[in-house]
Amino acid sequence: MTELAAVLDHLDNTLEDSLERLFALLRIPSISTDPDYAAECRNAARWLVDDLVSIGFEASVRDTPGHPMVVAHHPGVRTDSPHVLFYGHYDVQPVDPIELWEAAPFAPGIREIEPGRKVITGRGSSDDKGQLMLFVEACRAWKALHGHLPCRVTILFEGEEESGSPSLKPFLEAHKDELKADFALVCDTDMFDPETPSICASLRGLVGEEITITAASRDLHSGMYGGPAANPVRILAKILADIHDDDGRVTIPGFYDGVEETPSQVLQSWQAMGTDAANFLGPIGLSVPAGEKGRSVLEMVWARPTAEFNGISGGYTGKGFKTVIAGQASAKVSFRLVHRQDPDKIRAAFRQFVRERLPADCSVEFQPHGGSPAIQLSYDSPLLTKARQALSDEWPKPAVTVGSGGSIPIVGDFRTYLGMESLLVGFALPDDRIHSPNEKYDLTSFHKGQRSWARILDALSRRGT
Amino acid sequence: MTELAAVLDHLDNTLEDSLERLFALLRIPSISTDPDYAAECRNAARWLVDDLVSIGFEASVRDTPGHPMVVAHHPGVRTDSPHVLFYGHYDVQPVDPIELWEAAPFAPGIREIEPGRKVITGRGSSDDKGQLMLFVEACRAWKALHGHLPCRVTILFEGEEESGSPSLKPFLEAHKDELKADFALVCDTDMFDPETPSICASLRGLVGEEITITAASRDLHSGMYGGPAANPVRILAKILADIHDDDGRVTIPGFYDGVEETPSQVLQSWQAMGTDAANFLGPIGLSVPAGEKGRSVLEMVWARPTAEFNGISGGYTGKGFKTVIAGQASAKVSFRLVHRQDPDKIRAAFRQFVRERLPADCSVEFQPHGGSPAIQLSYDSPLLTKARQALSDEWPKPAVTVGSGGSIPIVGDFRTYLGMESLLVGFALPDDRIHSPNEKYDLTSFHKGQRSWARILDALSRRGT
Repeated sequence: MTELAAVLDHLDNTLEDSLERLFALLRIPSISTDPDYAAECRNAARWLVDDLVSIGFEASVRDTPGHPMVVAHHPGVRTDSPHVLFYGHYDVQPVDPIELWEAAPFAPGIREIEPGRKVITGRGSSDDKGQLMLFVEACRAWKALHGHLPCRVTILFEGEEESGSPSLKPFLEAHKDELKADFALVCDTDMFDPETPSICASLRGLVGEEITITAASRDLHSGMYGGPAANPVRILAKILADIHDDDGRVTIPGFYDGVEETPSQVLQSWQAMGTDAANFLGPIGLSVPAGEKGRSVLEMVWARPTAEFNGISGGYTGKGFKTVIAGQASAKVSFRLVHRQDPDKIRAAFRQFVRERLPADCSVEFQPHGGSPAIQLSYDSPLLTKARQALSDEWPKPAVTVGSGGSIPIVGDFRTYLGMESLLVGFALPDDRIHSPNEKYDLTSFHKGQRSWARILDALSRRGT
Repeated sequence: MTELAAVLDHLDNTLEDSLERLFALLRIPSISTDPDYAAECRNAARWLVDDLVSIGFEASVRDTPGHPMVVAHHPGVRTDSPHVLFYGHYDVQPVDPIELWEAAPFAPGIREIEPGRKVITGRGSSDDKGQLMLFVEACRAWKALHGHLPCRVTILFEGEEESGSPSLKPFLEAHKDELKADFALVCDTDMFDPETPSICASLRGLVGEEITITAASRDLHSGMYGGPAANPVRILAKILADIHDDDGRVTIPGFYDGVEETPSQVLQSWQAMGTDAANFLGPIGLSVPAGEKGRSVLEMVWARPTAEFNGISGGYTGKGFKTVIAGQASAKVSFRLVHRQDPDKIRAAFRQFVRERLPADCSVEFQPHGGSPAIQLSYDSPLLTKARQALSDEWPKPAVTVGSGGSIPIVGDFRTYLGMESLLVGFALPDDRIHSPNEKYDLTSFHKGQRSWARILDALSRRGT
């Protein structure tokens, strides 16, 4: 029997114990947004430190200006295996509206929600205490059986993820030598479906811009001035309309610089997932894909950049009517970026695009709202290949490599502050009701998730591709 | 000496008396929007009735659900002269902010604002008590000297013009037989400049439409849905941008049906007025005419139709940024109409234009906000020719025929309810500060305005063109 096979057996045999440990952690109401629960956040951090120490980690509670971090270290058995940083968060969302919970949010239990489908109930069961304990349990089993871990592991558990992570960047900056590893494992994501594990290999970047166009020095009567006077709503509408061509492509010069075509075998694997316009758009009342012609909806969201208009306002917007020509109009515009698109270049190209379309007697002000490049793990990276094989060995269906249309800030922070890529693997399901009443985590996710992490640790620790 | 020459002399000799009468009317604080001043509105109406009775009119205060009307009748000396309805309003705007007045608003007086330029000060001096008393004084002089009026005159003074004229339409409808005349004289307008009287021969009509585009059934996260999901702000911007071509013309099919080219001699007279893009747009901080290419700014405002976007809103419009794709976006759109453009056809053509550009999975709702055709007095009508000559005889510079970019509701109401065209002549000046503190009316306007109405009455009463 291999080291791994023994660990998997052990995890099967200790599932009840691991559930009890998760329940103990779930009973701590570590709500980070509510100052009344600050002591509970610290209790959760201490509980994790104690648990990690009990399995041989060098672990400590680290104070921040907000809620503390948990940092833990364990050496690997071999020096040629990688050093991994595992990230999760122990804080949870508030529980309002409390009256909608079928059981008390901090009294976890097991419920059978349909024949044969058992779930762990309670706030944090999925987001993120259940997910992070999977990895701890995998380490515990390895240590219990073999007395070591297959590779060097650093753990970072945050206590402010649900309240905007105000202490995270300074903490990474201040402890980069301690936290830097070969790569990060981030556990805050979903499975594709209950039988199909997924690895997220790409996250879109974002550039936000607010533009305000000023025409006349005051609001005008549309009778007295309609015709000769420039109307900033008209100018703005024209500029925004110019940003897409009839095929849904963005027309800003240089916008597609750094965008790569997704490998055909990846596109085929996405095609095989069965997501189409009907089932992607149907639930939100739509049916006609609005993105670039000739691309599937999954490619549009996971691997293509966009220009979106997130807000627009100008003139009279109250009830009834006012025959006014506004002095100003403004819009919030954002760009989702992929691959190697450069946020600074996109921002500059957009501003140039706007200025070129501005009448000579009008002016524009730009206000930047954040900019971050996309994250893209190479589709043929050994990290991805090994993790995908490990997951495929565990679950009924092979693992899929997916993307995320949005950003996950921690992944960008790891890249920025620690110069480190992340592997995103999680076992949550879309119906886990995270942030809502009656949060749950499938018992299958909890069980097979532990086994999955054991497999991934084993795979990543092997040399070669 | 002609009848007219004697009247003009008499007006010169009785200017002091006519000023005293205006002051008496200006001392009555007939603020129609403030219920506390309801009795004062009635006092102003009674004062006018008494004054009109004193010069031989059959005059009475007529109750309405709001402030009363004044209606007065006087026969003409000849049966072949026309019957004219003179319209003005005795109510005034509130006086706030009172602290900005240099003299009490209801204590009228004379002030020399620059060497040789005397003005009558006080609320209502220009809008509209000063303007309406000109006509009464012209009638008074005629009666005093000749014992008759040159034509049949009906007078209608309203007391709710500054508060939206809620009683006007029902009153016109109920008294149309009594009020119907050959045409109306409306005195609520400006001179072109202090030496140039003007007649307004055209008023633009208006069609207002509010459109709301619905795409997704709820607001979406722009990361999760950006690309495939239709964005109603983008759809709306595209539709609005399509409404004008690069030459500033409206592209809606059939939009220009009923629009006539303005006669070249009229365009030349406008050209001669010295209004250009620089002095028209300069005061509002603009310099580049935004209307149809190849048209002067005065033609754009007085004789060309427009499409204007009066308001737009959609998505997140608060401070900061939200990466949302809105479910809805809306705009308030209006069209200024000229000549024989049909409001109903324009509205229908616009709706069709929008629907044709709507993606198949989106919907649009239309909310109408009023519709009225343009007013256009024929440039060669005898009415206009006679009045222009009469004014040109009085003032240093010849009268000009102008247009108004906006609508004056009473003119449309006279057409709708009484089947009657209006001649718009007034002697206010753009610097009269109507609706503002320190309202004034030039003494020259008051003096030469009386003489002007005497001349117009005389001219209109003569047979032939």
